[in-house]
Amino acid sequence: MSVSETYYPSEPTAPVVKTSVIPGPESKKQTEELSTVFDTRPVYFVADYEKSNGNYIADVDGNVYLDVYAQIASIALGYNNPALIEAAKSPEMIRALVERPALGNFPGKDFKQILDNILKVAPKGQDKIWSGLSGADANELAFKAAFMHYQAKKRGYGTSFSEEEETTTMLNQSPGSPELAILSFKRAFHGRLFASASATCSKPIHKIDLPSFKWPKAEYPDYKYPLDDNAEYNDAEDKRCLAIVEDILTNWHAPIAAIIIEPIQSEGGDNHGSAAFFQGLRDLTLKYGSLLIIDEVQTGVGATGTMWAHEHFNLSPAPDMVTFSKKFQSAGYFFHDPELVPNYSYRQFNTWCGDPARMIIAGAIAKEVVDKNLIANAKEVGDYLFGKLEELSKKYPTELSRLRGKGRATFIAWDASSSEARNSFLAKMKLNGVNVGGCADHSIRLRPTLTFGKKHADILVATIDKVLSQN
Amino acid sequence: MSVSETYYPSEPTAPVVKTSVIPGPESKKQTEELSTVFDTRPVYFVADYEKSNGNYIADVDGNVYLDVYAQIASIALGYNNPALIEAAKSPEMIRALVERPALGNFPGKDFKQILDNILKVAPKGQDKIWSGLSGADANELAFKAAFMHYQAKKRGYGTSFSEEEETTTMLNQSPGSPELAILSFKRAFHGRLFASASATCSKPIHKIDLPSFKWPKAEYPDYKYPLDDNAEYNDAEDKRCLAIVEDILTNWHAPIAAIIIEPIQSEGGDNHGSAAFFQGLRDLTLKYGSLLIIDEVQTGVGATGTMWAHEHFNLSPAPDMVTFSKKFQSAGYFFHDPELVPNYSYRQFNTWCGDPARMIIAGAIAKEVVDKNLIANAKEVGDYLFGKLEELSKKYPTELSRLRGKGRATFIAWDASSSEARNSFLAKMKLNGVNVGGCADHSIRLRPTLTFGKKHADILVATIDKVLSQN
Repeated sequence: MSVSETYYPSEPTAPVVKTSVIPGPESKKQTEELSTVFDTRPVYFVADYEKSNGNYIADVDGNVYLDVYAQIASIALGYNNPALIEAAKSPEMIRALVERPALGNFPGKDFKQILDNILKVAPKGQDKIWSGLSGADANELAFKAAFMHYQAKKRGYGTSFSEEEETTTMLNQSPGSPELAILSFKRAFHGRLFASASATCSKPIHKIDLPSFKWPKAEYPDYKYPLDDNAEYNDAEDKRCLAIVEDILTNWHAPIAAIIIEPIQSEGGDNHGSAAFFQGLRDLTLKYGSLLIIDEVQTGVGATGTMWAHEHFNLSPAPDMVTFSKKFQSAGYFFHDPELVPNYSYRQFNTWCGDPARMIIAGAIAKEVVDKNLIANAKEVGDYLFGKLEELSKKYPTELSRLRGKGRATFIAWDASSSEARNSFLAKMKLNGVNVGGCADHSIRLRPTLTFGKKHADILVATIDKVLSQN
Repeated sequence: MSVSETYYPSEPTAPVVKTSVIPGPESKKQTEELSTVFDTRPVYFVADYEKSNGNYIADVDGNVYLDVYAQIASIALGYNNPALIEAAKSPEMIRALVERPALGNFPGKDFKQILDNILKVAPKGQDKIWSGLSGADANELAFKAAFMHYQAKKRGYGTSFSEEEETTTMLNQSPGSPELAILSFKRAFHGRLFASASATCSKPIHKIDLPSFKWPKAEYPDYKYPLDDNAEYNDAEDKRCLAIVEDILTNWHAPIAAIIIEPIQSEGGDNHGSAAFFQGLRDLTLKYGSLLIIDEVQTGVGATGTMWAHEHFNLSPAPDMVTFSKKFQSAGYFFHDPELVPNYSYRQFNTWCGDPARMIIAGAIAKEVVDKNLIANAKEVGDYLFGKLEELSKKYPTELSRLRGKGRATFIAWDASSSEARNSFLAKMKLNGVNVGGCADHSIRLRPTLTFGKKHADILVATIDKVLSQN
């Protein structure tokens, strides 16, 4: 029996749906109260986290859902996890909450240990960290490091700023505030602050009305599925996309300090790129002197069957920076090159430099993932689940097409026939006790925890079958 | 006896300095170890937060400093505060840490109460909140709201986006990604992400090498001190600066969606603006259709003698948005106009939408500030301290000049004769057991907690006197 079958002994054995509509009346009432002070339009339901357990989330109407969305892909272990409860009650945590330090100026004596607990699961080749607060923040901090590195390389790592640079940056003008770019990809999502939104390209709603940096977009491979039956087409697609990247690196009017890319474009529709594509990208960044930033905000922490999704590609050399957030509950980037530490102090700096409380949680998650072998579990259950979904895909070729994520553990997605069909599917799944999320225009993405088991997969598959059979 | 005299019964009665240099040998050793994984160049010393208490911070060498810098102005109540320890151990906190929700999609049933506890101390006129994670994040979220509001007003609040807007924003081009600006002020500090750094204008090191938005800068008043002796000059200075603002609002080549300003420019040197200046600014924003964002990241939460520093100005109407972070331990912005909620859902949105764990701490701070009347304490102690510093200013007119912050409780600053003199002063203060911070080129800023008492003020003043007498 695999670890997931016994991980949460008091987890519900099946979903419970008590209301005929979702959100139910109590959720609606509480949402209305909340709406007087907070924007509640995106609320699906008001949760009862006390009653949530393992892979099940409860709402205030007594509904209990099998959760394969997991707080927009950001719960690693499940609800009311004993290891995290222990971490939350630890003396280190109390201190981190009560004495929030300015980590750059006055780190506490436990800070090295807190970081080491995270670094134990750093991506292959990375041994340093800079800490932030969210996925967007992590990516923008990585952009900052990339821009500082690009300019330091240009003027010489130890060379100081010119007077002209110091004067012009105060006016937001070049050369102190230079025109440099980050290259990202169509359908990418890297966050919603201004620089990260300039790199984001998945939906207009994320970006519209915001001033943006005029940064270029390359094309991310758009494969035909099943992959095995379309190898030739997909190889050509890799080459086509790499040629576009090279064209931009050669011809863009401003230097490209870094390329940022998701190992699997998640918000953008669970679009996959091959190991060959990623190695090609790595080669191009070396050839043209750009850095490679891998955005593992959604893909990181085990869900694809390796701790970090890009580890599937065995990139050589390792990427320059790897950003993380979501399932790690904390945020930041890993790196290895000492020259990515800016050449003067106080350049990559802010008051808090991250949150030790959230870093303690990250360390506890890392330990649990390793100790309980949860990645092996995700792989085993993911393979099992993928097989079942392949069968369903034959039964419902229109509403369950382009099944993606084979060999990527539980990081699985497929397409519905339209946006309306997808949204209707998601709503019906909730009414049948399963909380699922969508991505892009008409895709469905599975983002269960790492403790998701075959027993949960069976419920999920049966519910999908039930809902699709009612069409 | 005022509250501060008995607030921390087991607080040290005086600083203890055990090492002849700071950082001491153990701090140095631990910093070196930490430097293998983290940028430690800005580290002053490695703290022992377990042994820190009230207004005293301990380091790993056994030194205990009176702390008037307080984690870069971000500790409201002092170290090991009983009310915060209670909040940190509460069941709500355990839940917030272990079940970090996507607050926009799946808020917990306690979220309304968590927000209400914060809103109890909202600035006059504000009754809604949007939550973020840091000061820079709070300001950029406010910028986003301002830009969306500006464009919605232009096209009609209920009008949907045009196809051209949706297409062009995906290419980072106008009209979907319009050229709009935020007006800020020379010497301002609003954060170090890309948009906030574009509004920041205090030091080149904060901005250099980062691509920036070409946003304009007005001038913040530069008063002569003492204020009472220079009323005419300072009035003229207000008018001069307001004329510059009006000129930019009239002539800048892109629309100014909002003005952002600190009630007291903090990183930039503790520069004060008068109530008349701020009301003039409020009038100009109304005349020209810009929003007014007050950045209370450093000035908020009581230290100036009102909960929010801009409340000293009695602005009419209230500002459109007020951002907070630092001493509130949580971040975000307050507002009141329902039309500042973007006209479509999922526009002001991200995975976490803030951190309920930090919001619980904010609520506990708010309650303690009100229950224990800590703002009255800060006023009383601040007036007392200012009087003592005025005396010292006469004794050391060169090294303690332009004393600022009269009537602003403990939010006090002054100038040294040079950057070198200031840095030497700060180092000597540490060697005498007092942790003080600088700002701008050659200013010293006091940022004690709200539980700072006359007994602490006496130690601070005696130490300043001692250090300056050795020059």
